[in-house]
Amino acid sequence: MDAGKIDLEALFQLNYGMYIVSSAKAGAVNCCIANTVFQLTPQPPVVAVSISKENLTHEFISGSGLFAASVLAEDAPTKFIGMFGFRSGRDLDKFKQTAFKEGVTGCPIVLENTTGYVEAQVINTIDVGSHTLFIGKVIACEQFDNGKIAMTYNYYRDVKGGRTPRTAATYQEVKKSLKSSEKQKTTVSKGDKAMKYKCLMCGYIYDPAKGDPDNGIDPGTEFEDLPESWVCPECGAAKDEFEPVGLED
Amino acid sequence: MDAGKIDLEALFQLNYGMYIVSSAKAGAVNCCIANTVFQLTPQPPVVAVSISKENLTHEFISGSGLFAASVLAEDAPTKFIGMFGFRSGRDLDKFKQTAFKEGVTGCPIVLENTTGYVEAQVINTIDVGSHTLFIGKVIACEQFDNGKIAMTYNYYRDVKGGRTPRTAATYQEVKKSLKSSEKQKTTVSKGDKAMKYKCLMCGYIYDPAKGDPDNGIDPGTEFEDLPESWVCPECGAAKDEFEPVGLED
Repeated sequence: MDAGKIDLEALFQLNYGMYIVSSAKAGAVNCCIANTVFQLTPQPPVVAVSISKENLTHEFISGSGLFAASVLAEDAPTKFIGMFGFRSGRDLDKFKQTAFKEGVTGCPIVLENTTGYVEAQVINTIDVGSHTLFIGKVIACEQFDNGKIAMTYNYYRDVKGGRTPRTAATYQEVKKSLKSSEKQKTTVSKGDKAMKYKCLMCGYIYDPAKGDPDNGIDPGTEFEDLPESWVCPECGAAKDEFEPVGLED
Repeated sequence: MDAGKIDLEALFQLNYGMYIVSSAKAGAVNCCIANTVFQLTPQPPVVAVSISKENLTHEFISGSGLFAASVLAEDAPTKFIGMFGFRSGRDLDKFKQTAFKEGVTGCPIVLENTTGYVEAQVINTIDVGSHTLFIGKVIACEQFDNGKIAMTYNYYRDVKGGRTPRTAATYQEVKKSLKSSEKQKTTVSKGDKAMKYKCLMCGYIYDPAKGDPDNGIDPGTEFEDLPESWVCPECGAAKDEFEPVGLED
């Protein structure tokens, strides 16, 4: 077989929905954002989800053999999605500020910004390298009578300008295409005054003059000097999800 | 665990694309329509597809360990999709009337009404009852520079009024909800004159006065008297994909 041409951008042609995949284990709950939730067989209904081994939710599903996928609605705010997608359950109780109910599997079902859910019991677990594919028998599924429509991954990316966490099945490194004149501007202005940076995920602006005192960052701290562990205080996006203000295309 | 509420309609909240999944074996090629094509891991890129064991394409992929998924464009005619989705490769050479090229895997890539393709080599095969999940390493993928956008399954179903073949991962039996007055009308008119039937897939009208002589059906043959093996001469949909003309909601 000849070597094929692999244009990774071409994989963006594949369509998906957007889901909050959750699980429960020993009374604790956790969740993450996934786009790879899909039905495998019609009767009995079987669904599958691909989850990064780095996610705490992976540990929960592996342990309990149960998962739920709450279907994100098209009008879900990017900030809401970012909270579930970019923050780790190791650092934050994602359900503290969100309306949810306990499903029959014990997994949390998100009731805000969603159109419904599917709950499943794992019947097969497939190791696919960085991710595990959990295959589950459908235990319950319901569509909420709230008139909302389900968000597609393309809508999230193209219309809402949403970003993809590093641990997603469809993640691709974003090449930041700064024009050389803009690169020049960055270099020059760095010498002049502290630059503001904008979170590409939720729009939050980091202003060095103000810092981020709630998270231990003193006023006067330049963006470059923020610790690598610092994340967007609004949505939890990492430092490299930020761009200098004025450099967006 | 309590018994859950399973509303199968709720599974329609899950979003998919629409694909022509093809394979090649010993010089022969075949394909079918699938909506469950998805990426499992970003690096190395791995994709998966769920195919009914009843499909000839299943036999081909099992035999060759290779598959391609051509991504259907939003403006692909329903009749075009129907030809690939409702006709079996056992009865018809699906590539006879379609522009295609041979991919590096030898699988046919459809060049009409598509936005691009992915080719993969099977690295794992999971039995999920009525279907098999083929997991494949991406060998090639490309997006055509034709300005077309990929069709979602929801668009196919809701906007184009497309139907789902019995062998699809997401198939559900359609409850034909005739009102009692309409049922009455059916009964009455059956006695009066031969009724026309419309293919819900492509819009073809079966007229008993004309029959379907190309396929051995004499003029004067009522729809009810057509053999069960008869299919829509336009798109290959089965008899139960037809409704009496005038009874559509």
